[in-house]
Order: sequence, then structure tokens, then C-alpha cells
Amino acid sequence: MTSLPAKARDEVLVLPQPYLLFLGDTTEAGYAKTAFGLRDWARDKCVGEFACAGATVTTGLPRLTFSEARAKGARSLVIGVANSGGTIADNWIDPLVEALEAGLDIVSGMHARLTDVPILRATAERLHRRLIDVRRPPQKIPVGTGRKRAGKRLLTVGTDCALGKKYTALAIAQGFQARGIDSDFRATGQTGIMIAGGGIPMDAVIADFAAGAAESLSPDAAAGHWDIIEGQGSLLHPAYAGVSLALLHGSQPDVIVMCGEVGRKTMLGHPEFAVPSIEETIDINLRLGSRTNPAIRCGGISLNTSSFSADEAERVIAAESERLGMPVADPIRGGAAFERLLESCLA
Amino acid sequence: MTSLPAKARDEVLVLPQPYLLFLGDTTEAGYAKTAFGLRDWARDKCVGEFACAGATVTTGLPRLTFSEARAKGARSLVIGVANSGGTIADNWIDPLVEALEAGLDIVSGMHARLTDVPILRATAERLHRRLIDVRRPPQKIPVGTGRKRAGKRLLTVGTDCALGKKYTALAIAQGFQARGIDSDFRATGQTGIMIAGGGIPMDAVIADFAAGAAESLSPDAAAGHWDIIEGQGSLLHPAYAGVSLALLHGSQPDVIVMCGEVGRKTMLGHPEFAVPSIEETIDINLRLGSRTNPAIRCGGISLNTSSFSADEAERVIAAESERLGMPVADPIRGGAAFERLLESCLA
Repeated sequence: MTSLPAKARDEVLVLPQPYLLFLGDTTEAGYAKTAFGLRDWARDKCVGEFACAGATVTTGLPRLTFSEARAKGARSLVIGVANSGGTIADNWIDPLVEALEAGLDIVSGMHARLTDVPILRATAERLHRRLIDVRRPPQKIPVGTGRKRAGKRLLTVGTDCALGKKYTALAIAQGFQARGIDSDFRATGQTGIMIAGGGIPMDAVIADFAAGAAESLSPDAAAGHWDIIEGQGSLLHPAYAGVSLALLHGSQPDVIVMCGEVGRKTMLGHPEFAVPSIEETIDINLRLGSRTNPAIRCGGISLNTSSFSADEAERVIAAESERLGMPVADPIRGGAAFERLLESCLA
Repeated sequence: MTSLPAKARDEVLVLPQPYLLFLGDTTEAGYAKTAFGLRDWARDKCVGEFACAGATVTTGLPRLTFSEARAKGARSLVIGVANSGGTIADNWIDPLVEALEAGLDIVSGMHARLTDVPILRATAERLHRRLIDVRRPPQKIPVGTGRKRAGKRLLTVGTDCALGKKYTALAIAQGFQARGIDSDFRATGQTGIMIAGGGIPMDAVIADFAAGAAESLSPDAAAGHWDIIEGQGSLLHPAYAGVSLALLHGSQPDVIVMCGEVGRKTMLGHPEFAVPSIEETIDINLRLGSRTNPAIRCGGISLNTSSFSADEAERVIAAESERLGMPVADPIRGGAAFERLLESCLA
């Protein structure tokens, strides 16, 4: 997020980096997904981890005290775990207070708010430290304008929720950077925001400002610069399509990458709704997206093949590419198929 | 809004009626649009008006003191005027306090919040009176489910903002009621909410809950009952399309009525965007709306012909009806064309 102009700081969350990862007293790896995601996708922004007594989960990063982390440049402690209730555990409070006292801000994506814990709030106020909730959007989001911005944009879109739009955007941004292309991952959900070090939680923005939020997220940039924007929901989702459309209009993407999952028949949490076809979902995205960028095109398909063996996945990917007449890849598997997808996006 | 179930009261605003209309010290009719709208569309819910010394504007309703209004059954004082700054004028404060003391709640659609005036807030708290801001959505809006609800629904949609979606919905609801059809006008904007006595300000809902809000607004009803839902924005609006799509999906309309304005070439406030054609806007609404109601159809077109003479309007309406092959009417002009539009919606 280094390319965001200073004025955007009121319109887009900007997190203090680098991070120290807080693991609490976690003994189940499944509760530490955020910490693992940060280790995997923002390794250079993490100086180490901190765990309470009793924790057995580790990211493998150096285990540091708060002062050690501060001395290594850490600016915030990121809550990298959840407990089963999604709350702030009682035995986390003392270490969180110590982190503030050591000079770290605290970043959280939990449902429970840090500022609702009186001792944390009081300590942060006394020491002028920040308690940052990445679920809460910034305060000064403008209404959308539809104005065409300089630079290039790619948006991941999908047939449903939770099938790889964030992962695909991260992998594409990494692939572009590996080719020396000036690009930024732009985050629209809480995990992505922590990885990027900033962004806007699109689902939490007031509806009238949602397209404006998406506009703020990918501001004017150099002509050859790419913003790779994390998609949300689906235009054909019965509950969240409005968020997806505002994100599409405000992002004004030059390229969309369509994300689907092999074998998913019905919408997650809405079993009475069939997952729409990839072709239909591409068509409706291009049609609606052309309103703010008439040059919009589909760069290819990102297929989540996690339920398949490597051989099966390769067959399915090849067959889908043949059927749809465009590049298809599973970014997690990478390989030549993914390289072709990247080439197509850049073509 | 009498048919809203009790549980909906946490999900939908419900205003205390009947009203006393507050005119302040207004001397310009243009600032009293809300009061005139309530007089014209909710006459049976207005016991009278109250004006401060110096006011020259009147709705023609009986001028009452707060006690007289209370004795006639009034339950709230509605701020029916705006001043040029959209603020609460200093010389309104004393009468507003008196209204609370006389037993009236206060309803406002102004940008300035009643609760930000300390004496109003303190008085309301002391007397257990409510200060209701119709720009603020209720607190317990659920996420959308897409579940098909009983009863019938009509949604007004449009090519742009501010061209007659509220007016059209009100006229259709009135037309249905005149034919003895059990129906309710469902409001999604502040003026509509005051007229209906309740509703949800769709533009102020958090994006993730927007479709859920629309679902709450038109709950299950008897098979022959119609909800006539006030539309918002346009699916082709660069800033507000997300709101329109959430409202379309959550309303799951059986019938849409497309609202356009003759002669409007560019989007209001977005002159670089052409107004889409009526045919294109109908097509995209039917296509996206079919996701939550596969039986969706277009009942006809509501054409705002306010810039034309009566003769010209009649010619344009006939020509558009011929061209589009469906009923076209200007609800403000009414007449046989509007009757044909109503018939088509009910067909």
C-alpha cells in the first residue's frame, strides 16, 4: 500500500508495520489462520511472533518479547488468532497491555472490539497508542464519482463467496511482481487488509458509499502500474451482490479474473440457490463492469481444485480451458497454466 | 405499514402516528417540501400544523398548539421543513422542547441530529420521549437469505436517480387501494418513510446487510397482498448501483415498473455518463432480479413528462408505448394510460 497518497489515509485503513504476531495461548492450528496467512503472504512485514504460556502453535518465526520486537522495528502487535467464541480471552489482557506499554499499537480483526476492554482503552489513551479494528471502515469515505483513473486495475470476481478471490489476487500480485511489473495488492476484507497493511473492509461500508470506497482503494497511479484488487461475494449472490456490484463499478477494472470452484453445486449457506455457471458470471460482470470501464475484459479463470488430486486437477483445468476458450489455472498449484493466465491478464 | 409484524420493529423503522407538522419560521415554500409531501400523501395521518412566529408558509391544515394536537391524538411532531443550512435553527429549540413536554415524540429527516442538541436530548431522556432520525437505519437488520416470501411485490426501478420512483410507487399503491386491492407502500428513503410511517433508509444501511434490509421491509404477507416498494438509484448508476441491486434482490419483486424521464440525457450529477435506454435498464433489472424471483416481469413504464405540455406529454406517452410495446404513463397526469399501467401490473 506504499503507493497510496497521504490524503487517502482518511479514506483507506493504513496499518502500522512491521508486525509482531500474537498467538495467545492457542493450541489448535485452525485458530491461527490469520497468523499463518501473514507469515505466508507478508513474511517481510513480520518481525516475529509472541505466544503466551501454554501455546503450542507456532508460525516458525522468531519468538520475541515485546521490547525485542520493538527494537527490531515492529510497530504493531497483530492478533493472529481467534478463540472459539471470537472474543478477547481474559488471559490475553495482561500481555496486550504490556505490548502497548512497550510501544506497540494493536491490530485486530476479531468481532469483539479492543476498545470495549476498559483497561486496553485506558492504556492506549494514556500512551497515545492505537487500537485498530480492521473490521471498521475509515470515516471519510466519499461518494463514488465514476471518474476514470490513471493506471491499470485487475479485480478478482467469483461465482460465490469463499472460493479463492483473495488468494487469487495475492498470487497474481506476486506473479506480476516476479515479472518486475509495478503492482499492488488492494485488500477489501479483514485478512487481506492485514496482509496488505491497509485497505477497506467493503462489507462494513455504508451502502451509499460502497462504490466510493472502491474508488479510494485504487487511486490514480502511473500508466503502467497495476492494482490487483481482492474481490468480494458474487453479482449473483442473493445476499451480497450489492457489495460485489459497488466494488466492480468503483474498481473500474481493465481485467477481471473469474474465480470458481470445481464441484461446488450450491451457494455457500444458501443451498436453494445453484452456483451460476462461469460463462454467465463472466458475462454479467463484463456487462455491468463496462459501465465504468468500457474496455473491461476477462483475463481468464482461477479454478479452486482443492478437492482433486494433482492429476485430476490438471485434467479438469485443461478441459475447462478448452471448453471456455481462455486460460484456466489453479493459483495454488501454479505451473505453466498459471503463467498463461498471467500472460493473458497482461496481454 | 400496519401489516408489519411486531418482530419487524427492530428491523424496520416504525414512526409514532398521527403527526403534527412542524413548519418552524419558514417563509419559503421550497423549504417545506416534506410538510407538503405529508399533506399530499399522508393526509389522514396528519392532525394539523404548528408554525413559529414569523412563518408565512402553511399546508392549509388546522393550526394547532402542541396540547391541542396531543388531544386530537397526535403522537409525534415531524420536522416538515429545512432551512438553508440543513441545521436545527436556534429559535426552533424552545418549541421543540415544549412539544416533548406536551407528550409528543419528534421525527426528523434533517442531516443535523436531534440528539446532538443537549437540551433536546436531556428533555427527551427525562420524559422518556423519542427523538427519531429517519436517516438512521434500525439496529438489528439481518443478512439476506434469498428465501421466497408469500404475497406479491412490485418495485419501482429507474434509469437514474430523482426521476419519480417514490412518486410512482405512491401513485400505484393509491391506485391499487382504490381498486380494493390489499396493498402497502414500502418506503426506502427518508421522505417516503415519513409518508408511510415507517421503512428503512436503504442508502444508510451497511452494505453487507442491504439485501437483508430489503427482505425485512416486505415480510411474508397474504397471497393476494401487494407490497409496492419505493426504488432507489439505478443498476447503471456509477455510485449507487450496489444499493439498487441489493434492493432488487431483497425485494424479490414479481413486477417492476421502470421509471424514466423524457429528455434527460446524462446522469444527475454525473454528466459524463449517458442515461441508459429504458430497454437496456429493463433487461438488466429482469436478468438480475430473476436470481431471487424467476417469475419477475416488467409491468410497464412510468414516464416523468414534467417538462412537457399536456398535449406533448400525451403524444410522447403514446409514442413510447407504441415503440416499447407496453403500457406507458405519467402517474402525475394519471388518466387512461395510468389505468392501463395498473391493469398490466395486476395482470
